[in-house]
Amino acid sequence: MTRIYDDPAEFADDQLAGFLDLYADRVRGVHGGVVAHRGDEPQVAVVIGGGSGHYPAFCGTVGPGMAHGAVVGNIFTSPSAAQAYSVGRAADQGRGVIFSFGNYAGDVINFGIAAERLRADGIDARIVVVTDDIASAAEEERRRGIAGDFTVFKVMGAAAARGHDIDEVERLGRAANAATRTLGVAFSGCTMPGEDEPLFTVPDGHLGLGLGIHGEPGIRDVPMLPARELADLLVDDLLKAAPAGAPGRIGTILNGLGTTKYEELFLLWGHVARRLRDAGHEIVDPEVGELVTSLDMGGCSLTLMWLDDELDPLWRADAYTPAYRKASAPLAALRAPSGDELAGAEAVVTAPEAGEAARRLAGTVRDALAAVESTIREHENELGRIDAVAGDGDHGRGMLKGITAATARIADLGPEVGGGWLLQQAGQAWAERAGGTSGVLWGAALEAFGRHLGDTAESYPAGVVAAGVREFASTIEQLGGAQPGDKTLLDALLPFTDELERRVAAGEELAPAWSAAGQSATTGARDTAELRPRIGRARPLAEKSVGTPDAGATSMALIVTAVGRVLEGT
Amino acid sequence: MTRIYDDPAEFADDQLAGFLDLYADRVRGVHGGVVAHRGDEPQVAVVIGGGSGHYPAFCGTVGPGMAHGAVVGNIFTSPSAAQAYSVGRAADQGRGVIFSFGNYAGDVINFGIAAERLRADGIDARIVVVTDDIASAAEEERRRGIAGDFTVFKVMGAAAARGHDIDEVERLGRAANAATRTLGVAFSGCTMPGEDEPLFTVPDGHLGLGLGIHGEPGIRDVPMLPARELADLLVDDLLKAAPAGAPGRIGTILNGLGTTKYEELFLLWGHVARRLRDAGHEIVDPEVGELVTSLDMGGCSLTLMWLDDELDPLWRADAYTPAYRKASAPLAALRAPSGDELAGAEAVVTAPEAGEAARRLAGTVRDALAAVESTIREHENELGRIDAVAGDGDHGRGMLKGITAATARIADLGPEVGGGWLLQQAGQAWAERAGGTSGVLWGAALEAFGRHLGDTAESYPAGVVAAGVREFASTIEQLGGAQPGDKTLLDALLPFTDELERRVAAGEELAPAWSAAGQSATTGARDTAELRPRIGRARPLAEKSVGTPDAGATSMALIVTAVGRVLEGT
Repeated sequence: MTRIYDDPAEFADDQLAGFLDLYADRVRGVHGGVVAHRGDEPQVAVVIGGGSGHYPAFCGTVGPGMAHGAVVGNIFTSPSAAQAYSVGRAADQGRGVIFSFGNYAGDVINFGIAAERLRADGIDARIVVVTDDIASAAEEERRRGIAGDFTVFKVMGAAAARGHDIDEVERLGRAANAATRTLGVAFSGCTMPGEDEPLFTVPDGHLGLGLGIHGEPGIRDVPMLPARELADLLVDDLLKAAPAGAPGRIGTILNGLGTTKYEELFLLWGHVARRLRDAGHEIVDPEVGELVTSLDMGGCSLTLMWLDDELDPLWRADAYTPAYRKASAPLAALRAPSGDELAGAEAVVTAPEAGEAARRLAGTVRDALAAVESTIREHENELGRIDAVAGDGDHGRGMLKGITAATARIADLGPEVGGGWLLQQAGQAWAERAGGTSGVLWGAALEAFGRHLGDTAESYPAGVVAAGVREFASTIEQLGGAQPGDKTLLDALLPFTDELERRVAAGEELAPAWSAAGQSATTGARDTAELRPRIGRARPLAEKSVGTPDAGATSMALIVTAVGRVLEGT
Repeated sequence: MTRIYDDPAEFADDQLAGFLDLYADRVRGVHGGVVAHRGDEPQVAVVIGGGSGHYPAFCGTVGPGMAHGAVVGNIFTSPSAAQAYSVGRAADQGRGVIFSFGNYAGDVINFGIAAERLRADGIDARIVVVTDDIASAAEEERRRGIAGDFTVFKVMGAAAARGHDIDEVERLGRAANAATRTLGVAFSGCTMPGEDEPLFTVPDGHLGLGLGIHGEPGIRDVPMLPARELADLLVDDLLKAAPAGAPGRIGTILNGLGTTKYEELFLLWGHVARRLRDAGHEIVDPEVGELVTSLDMGGCSLTLMWLDDELDPLWRADAYTPAYRKASAPLAALRAPSGDELAGAEAVVTAPEAGEAARRLAGTVRDALAAVESTIREHENELGRIDAVAGDGDHGRGMLKGITAATARIADLGPEVGGGWLLQQAGQAWAERAGGTSGVLWGAALEAFGRHLGDTAESYPAGVVAAGVREFASTIEQLGGAQPGDKTLLDALLPFTDELERRVAAGEELAPAWSAAGQSATTGARDTAELRPRIGRARPLAEKSVGTPDAGATSMALIVTAVGRVLEGT
């Protein structure tokens, strides 16, 4: 829906005023439209136009290498002959004017009159009408002009920029039109400024094949297609309508009509490109984006211009307009990264060689992770119920996905791998599969723990393990950004870590110290019931959570307790 | 609504595949995203990213002068740490990596982990988080990142391209973020691929002030505003949130969120620019268009970056990416057209000096046009009724608007003006005011008639007038594209013209010849009742029109008859 306007009746003039302000460094407003700034060498003036509502058609493609002026009519309405005449006069650089526009009755008449008036003033004026829409008529000369406007303007703009005379620019424009075919589909109509109802509609779940850009009748409505089939339909119908003796090089536009977005067009482009190449065509400088739109209409069109040796360089040539900019120099200065340069990114990183102590540690890590998995599996539903009080209830499920991925990953690793590496791999698997913030934090923390332990130590005394737990906790603090008392897993983890460090520093063995510290985790988790979360929850949910402990702190306490039992048993 | 996809679950990967095919000349796909082709001089790698669905954020702004790589997550979802790590490694050119992204919990964590891993590999890795959305929090460091992503990326990309080291690029990125403020409004929600219902909604007739780009809560819903008031709201709130000691130069982005179209943004820009200048600010290189979107969300945001002498040249610098291209050279080579060059377009064209015969002719023209006006006024309703059978019933109204404009125009011209000029002026006024195809045709035909007669002849014998009538008829034939028998005004006009020519060629005086030929027009108009229109009417309407004469032919016959009576009286 069109939403931004003041007086709907003044929409076309008001938007043009904003455009002229924005691009005051390159265009100048004149009665009826805009003219581009000009170079020292006079050129044949290519003056394009039609109604508003089709941006970047038409004023968005005025500039070096494209058009020299654009006539700006009211929304979806031909400009008047007086407008076209005025812009033509202002754009003329003494080498004549070519008016070019899509084949609509009003435009044909008004530009025709304007050309007559220019000739009466002694200015050579020609007309090149664009007729690319294969859905609109069987006879080529009766077809409407849609996104093929762009290829024709592009060729003439490039030809004019090369200094060709008016006969030659006109001839090349006609050649471009004769070589261009477009087929479009609409998914939804568009709404004029100030109106609540769309100008036309497409039945829900259907696409209008060949529907015109102002809602003119198309070929037929068909049920909506998957992208691959839509691409096949567009390509196949266009190839059937190819000009006789068509060569294999094709300039291509996949054009969005307004509300069909870039990502959708890219996805469709993948299929279009494959289908064209499968048919033996070489795709030259494809353009995917919005070049000829219809306000907020949903849909797209595919334009093919069969290129010969004359049209090819004109299609490839540089241009610099408000909406369409193309330059060969910036790309020519670059090269693709070499395989060596990219190798680091995708190489499979192998486990470092592990010492004897690290291999013994690996056994403990495997046992501990197995115990964690079984504990989480046992408490999955309970954790879910706690989380559902003020969250989305997926904490148990997410933790189980994480630990399951972790144990599956280390099950693939052999007995030569050390415990530090196992923890790093477990952490990566956990983060990638568990999803959610807690999954990423658990994964990163395990990875940090494993990196701290490493696989080359002669032994893993209690102090090293406690320092590894501190790394685990610090990673979560730094990445998660929470503070103690924020009702997060830190409220179980930090009391545990502090107590473990204190006992180990006092000379206690790891296993009893861990189990005793585990009591602090359990107490800390239980006490979160009295807290309000300070991050990540809206106020009503925060209030609701009082009286229920934090799910992440609860699972943390369960896990350290389970690991404590493993350590006591080894 | 998002319509083009195959498997919705694969949307993000599928669209990336199409993007990589399209831009294979400048980017390379790697695990997790894309990296740009590179130059000979190694640069600090600026690696941006976030979820998909925001194109051109993020992969659309990879290229010279902007980012060196983009991490591509699933739709509206943070990429994983493994993805960010992989793209960071691939983008690194030996001078370190700066990850930059909007401030969302998932992105902060995953890019944070990736940076840790890069550092563990010996690659210097930094993080610059964008926090521009003033609606999301009072404290600057807690704000979300939205379209201000772009200004921060732009500054860092330009700084890296200048060869600065990682400390300096990071410092400038933080400075850009500290200088950037954004405020957005949403008009409508967006729909994920494969879903029928939008992800969130905005109440009808309202705008969501400060609503996040994924539907996060904003400041409040307010009734929809006219464009001028919307601009004032955005500008005023942003100026209130200006960084301390802000200078007067501002880089600006007016960003469309998806379905808010260019014309709407231009219209809004006109007001934004005025308001900013009224507040004493100098606008530097404004950008209006889609830079950070949210699928098919309706809405827009305004971003201001306060520029100091460091940021200014980096904001202005050239860039060449798939979606954002800026070059100073093409514009530097141009100049605005001079007043002299444009004068022809807008000059008031004055009447040529008229001879004695032309002045006498002017009296006849005035009498004739007055008679036409009174005849059309008399028959306005009848013509409307005839036209309503298979048309829109506005023929009488349109003709009256045309002739009234014509007589008003010539009433302003003095007695020194000749008849040829009067007809030309009458024709121009008719075409500009009457609208519709018949208005344009009548206007052009009168103008051609007047040009043929001119104002310099010694006399206007019957043969010259008859040849002028032939010009009148030929103009309509050429511009309108109809054939005799197509049930148009030609079916009255051509029999009249033929008969007038025949009688004048046989030596008859003008007045009796015209009146006799008028009978042919009347007969021709009446006989159109038996015809089916061959142009411009759908088949059901064409059938319906059989039995009713053509309105255009009927008015033509009335007019030539009225003019005949004037000629008989002179």
